[in-house]
Amino acid sequence: MKIIEGIEVRDREELYLNIQPIQAGGRLTPEARKALIAYGDGYSVCDYCIAPFRLDHIKKPPIKDFYQELAEFLNMDAARVMPGARRGFQAVAQAILKEGDVALVSSLAHYSLCLAIEGAGATWKEIPVDENNIVTAEAAKEKIELVNKESGQLPKLIAVSHFDYLLGNEHDVRGIAKIAHEYEIPFLYNGAYTVGVMSVDGKQIGADFVIGSGHKSMAAPAPTGVLAATEQYAETVFRTTRTEGDITRRKFGIKETELLGCTVMGAPLVAMMASFPRVRERIKNWDEEVEKSNYFIQQFLKIEGNKVASEMPRKHTLTKVDTSDSFGKVAQTHRRRGYFLYDALRKKGISGPFPGATNEWKLNTYGLSWDQIKYLSETFLEIAEKNGIKVSK
Amino acid sequence: MKIIEGIEVRDREELYLNIQPIQAGGRLTPEARKALIAYGDGYSVCDYCIAPFRLDHIKKPPIKDFYQELAEFLNMDAARVMPGARRGFQAVAQAILKEGDVALVSSLAHYSLCLAIEGAGATWKEIPVDENNIVTAEAAKEKIELVNKESGQLPKLIAVSHFDYLLGNEHDVRGIAKIAHEYEIPFLYNGAYTVGVMSVDGKQIGADFVIGSGHKSMAAPAPTGVLAATEQYAETVFRTTRTEGDITRRKFGIKETELLGCTVMGAPLVAMMASFPRVRERIKNWDEEVEKSNYFIQQFLKIEGNKVASEMPRKHTLTKVDTSDSFGKVAQTHRRRGYFLYDALRKKGISGPFPGATNEWKLNTYGLSWDQIKYLSETFLEIAEKNGIKVSK
Repeated sequence: MKIIEGIEVRDREELYLNIQPIQAGGRLTPEARKALIAYGDGYSVCDYCIAPFRLDHIKKPPIKDFYQELAEFLNMDAARVMPGARRGFQAVAQAILKEGDVALVSSLAHYSLCLAIEGAGATWKEIPVDENNIVTAEAAKEKIELVNKESGQLPKLIAVSHFDYLLGNEHDVRGIAKIAHEYEIPFLYNGAYTVGVMSVDGKQIGADFVIGSGHKSMAAPAPTGVLAATEQYAETVFRTTRTEGDITRRKFGIKETELLGCTVMGAPLVAMMASFPRVRERIKNWDEEVEKSNYFIQQFLKIEGNKVASEMPRKHTLTKVDTSDSFGKVAQTHRRRGYFLYDALRKKGISGPFPGATNEWKLNTYGLSWDQIKYLSETFLEIAEKNGIKVSK
Repeated sequence: MKIIEGIEVRDREELYLNIQPIQAGGRLTPEARKALIAYGDGYSVCDYCIAPFRLDHIKKPPIKDFYQELAEFLNMDAARVMPGARRGFQAVAQAILKEGDVALVSSLAHYSLCLAIEGAGATWKEIPVDENNIVTAEAAKEKIELVNKESGQLPKLIAVSHFDYLLGNEHDVRGIAKIAHEYEIPFLYNGAYTVGVMSVDGKQIGADFVIGSGHKSMAAPAPTGVLAATEQYAETVFRTTRTEGDITRRKFGIKETELLGCTVMGAPLVAMMASFPRVRERIKNWDEEVEKSNYFIQQFLKIEGNKVASEMPRKHTLTKVDTSDSFGKVAQTHRRRGYFLYDALRKKGISGPFPGATNEWKLNTYGLSWDQIKYLSETFLEIAEKNGIKVSK
């Protein structure tokens, strides 16, 4: 089926059980799909944009309320919807950092955070992980001291993911926030893999900024994200424009410089809003999601040679596995090479792993039912056995 | 009809003839609606993101081809989809301007351009319009000289709209580009009101950057826009990241710093792509769109007291009118005050003007058929007569 010549209809979520690592939390709700249809047109949310003419003041659809609810949801003082988490990083970097400043990230940081810091003219330096691939408060403290010693100045920002994108490991964000505050450095909590799937309490964590991803974890279309701040830092990151025209003397009042005025309008925004009641509910099921993740991994480890690169037991539904000694060995002699695993999974209605990947790869079980989790587990064991890999009972 | 409690279905385009000034060119095509449904999920375009792992290299859906077609469509060397025209301004400002630099904009410039310049730490100064509210090459030259004289340095960027958002007047972008190049200053062509509705030839204009708006003029959902550049400036604005991890030594290869890697993914992007064949066709009808615009305005001016604030004859479908001596006078004594006009139009199935506006307001006739244009004209004359305003025959 085609949308137009050259663009086929996507059917992955309809035809497959999808364990693709970054797609699980961004699957739309039925309500979000309705919103896309009703609010697809470009400036669809601007019908009732009245004074003071800013997106977050619009009451119909109830954007103003939604922004308020988002802030409360994260236990922060102010929140804004951004065109992706990365645009949240960019707003913070541009508001906080100056040329020559240093910002600390983790050695597992997502590239978009590093680019946002680079774009602001600052330098990013890495806090190393420990032997378990965890970023600790101690390591953060050491790195702060090291940067101070080497450059004679403290880092101006510390940004760490609660769960990183590479391994889905949990990092000591509370401890790091505490250390950051001892040095009076603002702490950015990167919740791309938490906001929208598990409960996040920004104040309790000690975050000065909380960033989430709509298309990663809030059942929203791309490009959406959320940037929340404490009252103290909201003044900086949501600062309003201060310049005026040299000829016209016009000013732009309450428009926020880092946000360039309005951010995400129309379909993605209303879809995010439409998913929100369900998102607020689903975070209560996080423990069971983790339980299902661990169940699957236990089954998966029955396949001889299978290893898990992420921390164990799993605290997240995103997991990096290493199957180089199992499926990877099969791939060496299989006539379809690494593609045999992809083929075998597709045949059983499972999609997600990169075509050809049989060594290190990631999967995400978020949102699968127990029945689907069991089917997924059985299918992997079945494929292993069928290809002569030992499976313990 | 509700999407969820509190969010009503939008029906403006279904129930009304919509002359809202900024919504006309962003109405979706049927193909774009199909794309929203099929590609709504967050990371829907990332199913086949293989090496080198960048949005504009994805072949299925055919994003790579689309980016190429976009560049050709604008007769520029490289193009990228951005989360709105304003994010294009931001990328250029951040890549080109340094703290303390001056950028020239028109005195009719959109606030988002000014904010982008402010965000980059630079200052925006205005090129004044002439007595007809037109930005001329001569005025640009004078302003360049003035800035040079006052600050001892030339402006580092000149950015002017082909048609401005306030009046829909045409400005001498070719002449200004020529002047800019005499001083070796890059010229940014702001095509928010042209790209997607009329033919734009970047090289012929002399643009170093061309920026368009998806949700304003390309039948695409928000937030979408296009940023195109010549080969010379593509190297700057699409520069790839140059930093590396101090511990991991990792680099991020071909990720583009100002773009933060991937920009617009999923539903809005594929919808923009799905509309593109029709957009490419519809620009051929621009002359007739302008003809319809002028027809309407001629009829509209039959109402005694009605004036047009925009240049005449109209060269665009966006027009600012002044009805303070006609509908504005009625409003002074009408029991519904300024809302009488809004009410009367709604009753006749017409939507768009701000509720309460009866003095200076804007409308856009883009996309209306001749029958709709005639109906629109007749309705305004009818409302005028009904309220005791003279109408010439």
